[in-house]
Amino acid sequence: MIMKHAIEWEVGWSDSAAAAPARFVPATVPGAVQLDWARAEGWPDHTYGENWREYGWMEDKYWVYRTRLQAPSPQEGERVAFVSGGIDYSFAIRLDGVELLKQEGMFTPVDMDLTDRYRPGAVLEVVVDPAPKRADAHRSRAEADHSVKPAVSYGWDWHPRLIPLGIWDETHLEIRPDVYLANAETFYDLNDGLDAAELRLDVELNRYAAGALTWRLTDPDGESVFERTVDTTDKRISLHATIDRPRLWWPHDQGPQPLYLSEVSWTDGSRSDSASTRRLQRIGFRRVRLTMHEGAWREPVGFPKSRSHPPITLEVNGRNVFGKGTNWVNPDIFPGTITAERYRTLLELAKDAHMNLLRVWGGGIVNKESFFEQCDEMGIMVWQEFPLACNLYPDKPDYLRVLDQESRSIVSRLRKHPSLVLWCGGNELFNSWSRMTDQSLPLRLLNANCYALDPKTPFLMTSPVEGMGHGNYVFRYQNGEDVLQAMPKANNTAYTEFGVPSPSPVELLKRFIPPEELFPPKPGTSWESHHAFNAWVGETWLMPRLIEDYFGPSETLEQLVERGQLLQSEGYKCIFEEARRQKPRCSMALNWCYNEPWPTAANNSIVCWPAEPKPAYYAVQSSNRPVLASARIPKFEWKEGDWFEPELWLLNDSPATVPGGRMAAYLDLGTGGRHLLLAWDVPETGPNENRRGPTARFRIPAASDERMKLELVMPDAPERDSVYTLLFTSENRPAPQPRSVLNL
Amino acid sequence: MIMKHAIEWEVGWSDSAAAAPARFVPATVPGAVQLDWARAEGWPDHTYGENWREYGWMEDKYWVYRTRLQAPSPQEGERVAFVSGGIDYSFAIRLDGVELLKQEGMFTPVDMDLTDRYRPGAVLEVVVDPAPKRADAHRSRAEADHSVKPAVSYGWDWHPRLIPLGIWDETHLEIRPDVYLANAETFYDLNDGLDAAELRLDVELNRYAAGALTWRLTDPDGESVFERTVDTTDKRISLHATIDRPRLWWPHDQGPQPLYLSEVSWTDGSRSDSASTRRLQRIGFRRVRLTMHEGAWREPVGFPKSRSHPPITLEVNGRNVFGKGTNWVNPDIFPGTITAERYRTLLELAKDAHMNLLRVWGGGIVNKESFFEQCDEMGIMVWQEFPLACNLYPDKPDYLRVLDQESRSIVSRLRKHPSLVLWCGGNELFNSWSRMTDQSLPLRLLNANCYALDPKTPFLMTSPVEGMGHGNYVFRYQNGEDVLQAMPKANNTAYTEFGVPSPSPVELLKRFIPPEELFPPKPGTSWESHHAFNAWVGETWLMPRLIEDYFGPSETLEQLVERGQLLQSEGYKCIFEEARRQKPRCSMALNWCYNEPWPTAANNSIVCWPAEPKPAYYAVQSSNRPVLASARIPKFEWKEGDWFEPELWLLNDSPATVPGGRMAAYLDLGTGGRHLLLAWDVPETGPNENRRGPTARFRIPAASDERMKLELVMPDAPERDSVYTLLFTSENRPAPQPRSVLNL
Repeated sequence: MIMKHAIEWEVGWSDSAAAAPARFVPATVPGAVQLDWARAEGWPDHTYGENWREYGWMEDKYWVYRTRLQAPSPQEGERVAFVSGGIDYSFAIRLDGVELLKQEGMFTPVDMDLTDRYRPGAVLEVVVDPAPKRADAHRSRAEADHSVKPAVSYGWDWHPRLIPLGIWDETHLEIRPDVYLANAETFYDLNDGLDAAELRLDVELNRYAAGALTWRLTDPDGESVFERTVDTTDKRISLHATIDRPRLWWPHDQGPQPLYLSEVSWTDGSRSDSASTRRLQRIGFRRVRLTMHEGAWREPVGFPKSRSHPPITLEVNGRNVFGKGTNWVNPDIFPGTITAERYRTLLELAKDAHMNLLRVWGGGIVNKESFFEQCDEMGIMVWQEFPLACNLYPDKPDYLRVLDQESRSIVSRLRKHPSLVLWCGGNELFNSWSRMTDQSLPLRLLNANCYALDPKTPFLMTSPVEGMGHGNYVFRYQNGEDVLQAMPKANNTAYTEFGVPSPSPVELLKRFIPPEELFPPKPGTSWESHHAFNAWVGETWLMPRLIEDYFGPSETLEQLVERGQLLQSEGYKCIFEEARRQKPRCSMALNWCYNEPWPTAANNSIVCWPAEPKPAYYAVQSSNRPVLASARIPKFEWKEGDWFEPELWLLNDSPATVPGGRMAAYLDLGTGGRHLLLAWDVPETGPNENRRGPTARFRIPAASDERMKLELVMPDAPERDSVYTLLFTSENRPAPQPRSVLNL
Repeated sequence: MIMKHAIEWEVGWSDSAAAAPARFVPATVPGAVQLDWARAEGWPDHTYGENWREYGWMEDKYWVYRTRLQAPSPQEGERVAFVSGGIDYSFAIRLDGVELLKQEGMFTPVDMDLTDRYRPGAVLEVVVDPAPKRADAHRSRAEADHSVKPAVSYGWDWHPRLIPLGIWDETHLEIRPDVYLANAETFYDLNDGLDAAELRLDVELNRYAAGALTWRLTDPDGESVFERTVDTTDKRISLHATIDRPRLWWPHDQGPQPLYLSEVSWTDGSRSDSASTRRLQRIGFRRVRLTMHEGAWREPVGFPKSRSHPPITLEVNGRNVFGKGTNWVNPDIFPGTITAERYRTLLELAKDAHMNLLRVWGGGIVNKESFFEQCDEMGIMVWQEFPLACNLYPDKPDYLRVLDQESRSIVSRLRKHPSLVLWCGGNELFNSWSRMTDQSLPLRLLNANCYALDPKTPFLMTSPVEGMGHGNYVFRYQNGEDVLQAMPKANNTAYTEFGVPSPSPVELLKRFIPPEELFPPKPGTSWESHHAFNAWVGETWLMPRLIEDYFGPSETLEQLVERGQLLQSEGYKCIFEEARRQKPRCSMALNWCYNEPWPTAANNSIVCWPAEPKPAYYAVQSSNRPVLASARIPKFEWKEGDWFEPELWLLNDSPATVPGGRMAAYLDLGTGGRHLLLAWDVPETGPNENRRGPTARFRIPAASDERMKLELVMPDAPERDSVYTLLFTSENRPAPQPRSVLNL
């Protein structure tokens, strides 16, 4: 039996590693030192107004967690260990004043045997160093470029400068038998036909011992597949098994998520309990590859000949799957506060929006186990980046040593999850603002570690690589084209970031912007702290002048927000659907970004902190339906006399054939009437195939409301209907001025 | 003392591993079983006519090398070992009928202790399996795609189907002391300023023993840098040292090649000889990187944004070096016959042609030590590929296991050489005829092994990667443009293969083509076997109709050869110089190919087998001069009334500033007179800088010989003068016909 004993912590700070804190306050573990201190001081919520600024000094202190251990002394044949899932970021552990461990890195768990030194009442301390900073990088993300600390905390265009520190994952004292399973992991190989799996169980005991090892595999219905017991005297044991016709794990839009259970236990037979220690592992059998898209090998043509674009089409169990999803960022500034329930709410929303792929962006943390467990259950695929983003991480031994340790810990922990389909070195490392290359040793190290520890999962050095695209992040581009005009000209193999911003809903804004600052939004207020102004470039992310260009002056906050959210909704619909239309050359559409770590006033996100969908969430949900009527619409803004020429499509990325049926396109001009543009008899459409239809043609009349709607109606399958809202501008309103064109 | 005892071998073949050969013949080691058998049978030279066809059956036999060992029994305190640098390809070793080793892989040396089994007169056998072939790949290079056997032997467009087998590197019996240095290697780290080196010596004894280890470093002048002796009892020992201002090793066109000597010896003090074993290693201190070319980070522009091209500019000791050289292929069908002297002749020719970089192409072998030792001494940089080329090498465990072993052996052997500046996974693996990708496990493995064993040397998965170009391989492209027209439109970061074919010199052709076949050349004769016809596509590599298009019918072999060689010479001059003009975006020009493994009738090579320069060699030598007058010439073929508009350049890739001076351009029309086109006062030009000059403009008159020459004359520096031969075609000769345009 393994007994876990909770620990009651207190925490305090000092200015040096040598000095003791002057004061200790109660600590919540997992959590963050900042929140403990704020709670003790009775500070108001850090998410409100400018309160976050009060936390700045804490990043430079030494924080000491302290406890008197209360668990009883281990009995004969027992061991006691201190176990922590993660301590952020650089720390030492002392027992009764003796330093037992020093570690840099928040993703390598601690498992420290204390048996020989333990006594009830012993003082355990965890001393957390100040946040790591490269000395000559002044208050920017570059401060994080010599560490494996997620860079986002150093400030981003949607994250305040606020660097969490402290114990951020489950931490306790553990009483164990003298001999225990230090490790037990089941690996599998599927055969080429995917109808047999060879299993290998690797077990490691903490020491050589004679005993019996039992291995059980249970199918998703709870039925036993096999059970075997072997006598062992070794420390490391490997067992093999083969199973026929394993039920395959699929992304949720492609099939079920059967999870087998591998159960391993070891006993020396001398005890009353049948198994002194036990390990459980769920297994989802699937094969994932990155493949070349159809036609890719025909490029490049001519001489001198370069190479074809690298592969980015996900193939799951032999079937190409269009990657439809989003970029996941830290759901909180303080990862220690994230619970399984918070993950669940966000993941269920993602699944409800028909998302099958989350890119877990390299600026943030590697999530806790409950994130991946729920992705396994829900059939959501995860693209996991290592904690490198938008920096030049160096070829230096000290950094490489920590990255080696941290990446090994991350891969070893996560490789067992069927949802984990792609490793990636980090974000935008090959772009000019990062200046890493294929030669950078950190990325070669990550390739080597992923190859060594999880070779069957694809690996990318970064995103984007050749053919893939990131951006743009605004509704209207530098050249004056709106996103509806620009995207059909793009020709990328995967759109793994693209964004359109909007303000947050009014009722949310009121929760963190003081009433006197609410309207009109101005730079230099909480609007700016919460990313509405000067976040990236120009007027990002609120973009009030762009909104005014399209709609004229907004009289109320409600009106401004509604208009910004309309642009975001229609922009995202355009990009998701255009990316799908570009299949099979294009194989992914992942918007930037899904969620956010605190309340933003304006952002590219579609779900506000902590988990409140914006209108764009529902727009994305609509565009991500496996089967839908869709239109390539030439532009957003229309005038009298323009020829309105939408191109009709039936989009299908489901594994099912879609029966034929009629699609009618109407243009609803409000006071200008509703006009049938075209009726198209859509033929039967095969699995994962799109059907390109005719282009309607209609001259826009003078009379219209400000908003006009293109409605695609499928009477036999109304769940596939789509509606696009567009802008009608009368001639007497001036065209957009260059002043509002951002330098993007 | 270590005593080497030569072994007298004989060899025979059988149809199965179990059967003994019916007959043994004397064997030359190193060598190849084919040559031994042919010699015993008195066959004529395999290079003549169609003789090579007689060797076909040998690739499928089991070949048994046999010897009675003659060395005396080891004395007390001695050991005896069988040592071989390489056995090609899959083999077993038996002593007195007992199998002691089975190995697949020709690049992993054998070092097998025989002490306990040895007796004078013992029978040692090396049983070489038939050449590896994937069963379902019919007589093509694809037969090699599941092995680490160089693919070229299975037939290429300049290599007959002839697969060498046998002991291909130095092999002997070795009497050693009981304790010896199993390994000793010195590594270094240069500091950022390149003015200090930290050295680490890693020593491994064959077993634990007490003794004294001496480490000496000698500078290039033979002066001692340091010497130290430490007492040791360990099996593995590491020592450290720092030296100030190490003299740096440079490519020959950039600086000197100082080689230090690290000498390690170990003794237990009980012997008369002061050092029982000793290891020597030369060290050339240099830092090599692949960097982004100037301006690379400004691309790509716009959104969606992909990545910048990967880096391919060689930086040596902080200085960008234009990579000027060639593709090196096996200098012989039978690598066992290659000696240090044969390497020397070819390498000296390369150096004399101002080549500083050899791409050792992945279709061939990894060369012997004497190749690299001479490159170290001559200052020739080596881009070394692993033995993968133009195939889809699989993600299969059996293949990966051998590739892992072989690549570790290759990297461990070669990493000490300063000339080794680039590792590469293999040839054209990301192109449609190979269909490997960044996800291919063999390439991820090679990256991981190079990172683990030699992280400071850059690594490419293949050539070409993005931005780099391979081809074309003909003087005139599919669209009818000649190479002078096509190349200025290319925009690659490195031209790492490009070729223009020519026939071999007449006196060489006569050595291997029977007299009755010599003229006119015809398919189906030895011309075809020696690659003049149907080698790649169309009429490669002789291209008689293209030659006829330009020059009219050839009356003699001499005339045909001269014309083909002119096209090759002028084509290569164009490409080498155009690549240099495209610096800094372009950073390499490596023609396909340098040498050849046997006499070809026509080929892209510039040095015929075994080491006879073609005229194009001298053309390349001219274009590779560090400083030269150069012209971008719009096309090869000119007619009366054309405006002749050469653009003048001064090319400089030397590390020196070039003083200003006058360059005059003349057009020599022979009977049409010699015309001064332009005189340009070239300003002083900085190190590694080109100077783009004016464009001359001259109307071609009616009267001219068939050949016209553009002469660039620099009176103050005649060593920089250049001459280009061009074609004048009178109007009454018909224009080239489409029939002669190859589908390239």
